[in-house]
Amino acid sequence: MNQVLTQKPHDMLAATLSNEMAAVNTLIQTRMASEHAPRIPEVTAHLVEAGGKRLRPMLTLATARLCGYSGDNHVKLAATVEFIHTATLLHDDVVDESGQRRGRPTANLLWDNKSSVLVGDYLFARSFQLMVETGSLRVLDILANASATIAEGEVLQMTAASDLATDEAIYLQVVRGKTAALFSAATQAGGVIAGAPETQVDALFAYGDALGVAFQIADDLLDYQGDSTATGKNVGDDFRERKLTLPVIKAVAQATAEERAFWMRTIEKGRQDEGDLNHALALMDKYDTLSATRRDAMEWVTKAQDALTALPNDPIRQMLHDLADYVVARLA
Amino acid sequence: MNQVLTQKPHDMLAATLSNEMAAVNTLIQTRMASEHAPRIPEVTAHLVEAGGKRLRPMLTLATARLCGYSGDNHVKLAATVEFIHTATLLHDDVVDESGQRRGRPTANLLWDNKSSVLVGDYLFARSFQLMVETGSLRVLDILANASATIAEGEVLQMTAASDLATDEAIYLQVVRGKTAALFSAATQAGGVIAGAPETQVDALFAYGDALGVAFQIADDLLDYQGDSTATGKNVGDDFRERKLTLPVIKAVAQATAEERAFWMRTIEKGRQDEGDLNHALALMDKYDTLSATRRDAMEWVTKAQDALTALPNDPIRQMLHDLADYVVARLA
Repeated sequence: MNQVLTQKPHDMLAATLSNEMAAVNTLIQTRMASEHAPRIPEVTAHLVEAGGKRLRPMLTLATARLCGYSGDNHVKLAATVEFIHTATLLHDDVVDESGQRRGRPTANLLWDNKSSVLVGDYLFARSFQLMVETGSLRVLDILANASATIAEGEVLQMTAASDLATDEAIYLQVVRGKTAALFSAATQAGGVIAGAPETQVDALFAYGDALGVAFQIADDLLDYQGDSTATGKNVGDDFRERKLTLPVIKAVAQATAEERAFWMRTIEKGRQDEGDLNHALALMDKYDTLSATRRDAMEWVTKAQDALTALPNDPIRQMLHDLADYVVARLA
Repeated sequence: MNQVLTQKPHDMLAATLSNEMAAVNTLIQTRMASEHAPRIPEVTAHLVEAGGKRLRPMLTLATARLCGYSGDNHVKLAATVEFIHTATLLHDDVVDESGQRRGRPTANLLWDNKSSVLVGDYLFARSFQLMVETGSLRVLDILANASATIAEGEVLQMTAASDLATDEAIYLQVVRGKTAALFSAATQAGGVIAGAPETQVDALFAYGDALGVAFQIADDLLDYQGDSTATGKNVGDDFRERKLTLPVIKAVAQATAEERAFWMRTIEKGRQDEGDLNHALALMDKYDTLSATRRDAMEWVTKAQDALTALPNDPIRQMLHDLADYVVARLA
């Protein structure tokens, strides 16, 4: 853990994979272009410049390398994964009617919902072309299934988010859809493209899945305990948007009748007054649900790290191990 | 032509392919389901029940059969094509903010934009899974490229539709994206899955492309001369929505300075008063642009029929020939 705190593991991965990440960035720029519709690179440049850590494409490059891959299809796959991620963000912003992403105005505010929907579709199509170029039906199968899980998870979230009946099992399904499915597809596809044995491919899936779940739980926790400078979001956005996440689900599960009425009014019916967020935070404090949520995230980190033991002992494996720690370390 | 007027060619195709169309419908129902998110079949059932002619999947079944295919992957491909089409409709309705589709309220009015965006994404993902199951990288390549052309065309339409600089060449690009790309992918994929020789595959692409262009031109013409009972749309919807289509583009190209100012105000700036639609129709009449547009549609019909000569002489070929006639016959 000490090393993690001095140099961030995704920075170490980025340094190790710097040539390939540069190739991914170039490929993204090239494939994002559109001869006929200049609006497309305008909208996407805005997202791509905004940065983000490029965590998902890095996972594909890292796992392919870890499994001894020496070709260059992993670069295409990494760009594919980033395109899918960016397309999802564009559509999410329309669905959430969000005004900020990574501390900057979202595309749907700068342009309009139409642009976000259609440019998202364009990026999905571009990602699809890229993965076909790898010529691997197995990889296509993995990414097709991940796409379906992502979309299903988004629909599920839309209908379940404000429903007090949503329990931890449904939450986990939503989290798999919105985050873990693309993480596990990214890591699994890296192994498949490298021709890794099945035990390793399975381990890579398990690692990506657990890392993604840990990552999303941590994100949902940060919404209630982070500061907006670090996250680019405001504390309690999920509460205001009536999204049931783990810290609240745990509080609802233990609620008295009076507390349940509070959650019913604020989340399910969406009638919120000043002071409600503070009361919600007090209820989470009463049942110590933020700590319980953090413990859950840590369990997923351990699962992710356990999965890695099936993979070759290599500096990259250590970085992936540390990356899992870091997902929760940012909560400290 | 006489035969066409007594029995509609798509009904003859539907009768010839009835077993396979039934299999397509069953597959669509099965794959549309979602264990976790009941909202998905609710939204899609609404579209699927609304019917439509299932023209696109029928084209895939017909062309595969015409090229002697005896397997069953064409059923998966046909369902794929219909899923892509339905997904596009869902996203279009969000973009157009339309309230009616096939004479019924659109999903975004019955539910909300969120559902339309996310369920559209789900259908795209489902179509992707289905095509991967065919195991044909060539088919995947065709459909990936079609998806990119569709999305690019939609973005182009959004930015070009109300811009008086949009000429017939740009219009054709938009039409390829919004209609012809999926028609040509549907026909070409049918030939590829059947293992047809390249000359036939090329001919099927040319047929689908020309049929799609003719179909869209006819649709745009119907907007100005159809009656709303037949089309489920109101006369002049495109004018009110400030969409430049061929009949208006031809009138703008010949406009006097005063007429240009009219188009500038009503289409480009979108300031429309009562009586403007009638004035627009009078200008189209002055330059006889509806007739010129009909002639263009007929030229594309001829191109489609010429392409068919490279294909085996078969009753299905005749039906595809008659289908092209019918696209324009509905304008009579």
